[in-house]
Amino acid sequence: MYCGLDIGGTKVLGLAIDGPGATEPAASRRAATVYDGETMIETVEAVVAGLESDCGQPMAAVGVGVAGIVDRTGTLRYSPNIPGVFDLPVRARLEADLARPVTVENDATAAVWAEMRVGAGRGRRHVALVSLGTGIGTGFVFDGQLYRGWNGFAGESGHMIIQHGGPEHLTGARGPWEYFASGRGLVRRARELAAAGELADLVAEAGSAEAIDGARVHAALAAGDPAAMGLLDELCRYAGIGVANLVHVLDPELVIISGGVADIGEPLIRGIERWTHAHVLGGDHRPKVRVVAARLGPRAGAFGAALLAAADSAADPIG
Amino acid sequence: MYCGLDIGGTKVLGLAIDGPGATEPAASRRAATVYDGETMIETVEAVVAGLESDCGQPMAAVGVGVAGIVDRTGTLRYSPNIPGVFDLPVRARLEADLARPVTVENDATAAVWAEMRVGAGRGRRHVALVSLGTGIGTGFVFDGQLYRGWNGFAGESGHMIIQHGGPEHLTGARGPWEYFASGRGLVRRARELAAAGELADLVAEAGSAEAIDGARVHAALAAGDPAAMGLLDELCRYAGIGVANLVHVLDPELVIISGGVADIGEPLIRGIERWTHAHVLGGDHRPKVRVVAARLGPRAGAFGAALLAAADSAADPIG
Repeated sequence: MYCGLDIGGTKVLGLAIDGPGATEPAASRRAATVYDGETMIETVEAVVAGLESDCGQPMAAVGVGVAGIVDRTGTLRYSPNIPGVFDLPVRARLEADLARPVTVENDATAAVWAEMRVGAGRGRRHVALVSLGTGIGTGFVFDGQLYRGWNGFAGESGHMIIQHGGPEHLTGARGPWEYFASGRGLVRRARELAAAGELADLVAEAGSAEAIDGARVHAALAAGDPAAMGLLDELCRYAGIGVANLVHVLDPELVIISGGVADIGEPLIRGIERWTHAHVLGGDHRPKVRVVAARLGPRAGAFGAALLAAADSAADPIG
Repeated sequence: MYCGLDIGGTKVLGLAIDGPGATEPAASRRAATVYDGETMIETVEAVVAGLESDCGQPMAAVGVGVAGIVDRTGTLRYSPNIPGVFDLPVRARLEADLARPVTVENDATAAVWAEMRVGAGRGRRHVALVSLGTGIGTGFVFDGQLYRGWNGFAGESGHMIIQHGGPEHLTGARGPWEYFASGRGLVRRARELAAAGELADLVAEAGSAEAIDGARVHAALAAGDPAAMGLLDELCRYAGIGVANLVHVLDPELVIISGGVADIGEPLIRGIERWTHAHVLGGDHRPKVRVVAARLGPRAGAFGAALLAAADSAADPIG
């Protein structure tokens, strides 16, 4: 068996699979999210041990998906989600401790692989996955192959500037895509509007503008609150601007939307698709790119990491 | 022999080469630029006949590079440079008239291929070419292969929005990269500053703010005019924002700057490189992407089109 872990901003998910052709996980484990490099290594090892206990079998190889820039040696160079972790040789550390092959990959890159193999991207050749979570991550398949770039850092599209000289993001950059179109951006905008006297129902439920969180925004959208629907349309417009940028650069046939924000469902997907088409130049003279929801939901990163570990292990068996 | 043509916004250039391994053109021809589909077809045919006359040999295959979105069948779907041309089957028309294989490609895609084979990109695997001309076009090589995308429309990066809700470009889009960082953007900005009372020397030479053109801006830069150097730094900043966006998305090892604006030379290249590094996130934890000038200058598009025609012809011989 093989396992994959997704080190997310709010939790860690581990999945075990039977092999590289698996379509469903055999077991799953959750853990609290990690805040530094040492707890990250310890957490991975504990989740692997837990999955082995659940399955009654050893894990032959381990895959790890993590937000941030991961180089081709499996070193996490920099992660916005895990402050203080720089140049951590995750693969080397885990292989030394676990004595088996370990694959480390950017989380969105792992997720697009899972969606290609068993999710919304099956049978496609040119796919971009856009994960709208705390930030924005993207993963690409070009000509049927995972695209990693020179260092393995491709797909950091959340940092694309869409408003130069715009508001300062927590990264220090001004006006990056994820400032506007991420889950954090959605909540920030809700609070801004609430502070300006709008979204009265949401403020009443939360108690104050500052107490509005993602769950309350999602609930207001599910209830069809008109003010919240305006907020959603604005989010879709910002998301569509960035997706259209990716369409101009990459010309994918399919864009898969994943991440926590994707839980909003069809109104989000249709809105992003509409705003994407509105921003693509020469739209009457090219096939319209399709925008769809991820099928694997929050499991995509861990599932993809497991599939990559199984595939790497099959291609390059050790021991 | 084989030939390639570059249908540019201000001129048409044709080059003849001996074969797919050519490093220098054997002959060249120029023609006035084209304004509609029929003159485009006629011009290509006239340039091919001229090159055959110059070389005393037939051209076994013809390559055409043209700004705009060209699909995989060689149909020019839409071109910002040739208004009124939509869905023109350039390849089919030329193959019918010329009775030999024709390859039609986006001009920047053709140019990056030439730079990879005989120019600044030799020996590299992940390269982005950024052509700063009237607009901005880009061409990509990923893992050593030309990247075209789903339809063949990849690399329309000049249309990336870098200032949402910003000034309206002639395409109707608000705040695209090429509004700010193209040759047209440079001249527009010079005229704006001149109208506001700056760039006095440039205005005196041109006669009026509105009479400032690209040649005068280039001359002022070559003369080291301090106000013009400020203009250049601003251009480099805008160019660097877009290049950094491409670095975040694609993680290339090398960015090659071509197009008419590249005639400014080293101060432009160094400025773009500096501003690119300033905008790339986590720059202390990743190798710095190199920014270099194209080696083939204005010949890259035609040379690349000829190389692609020769390669396609060798791979798929007809008759």
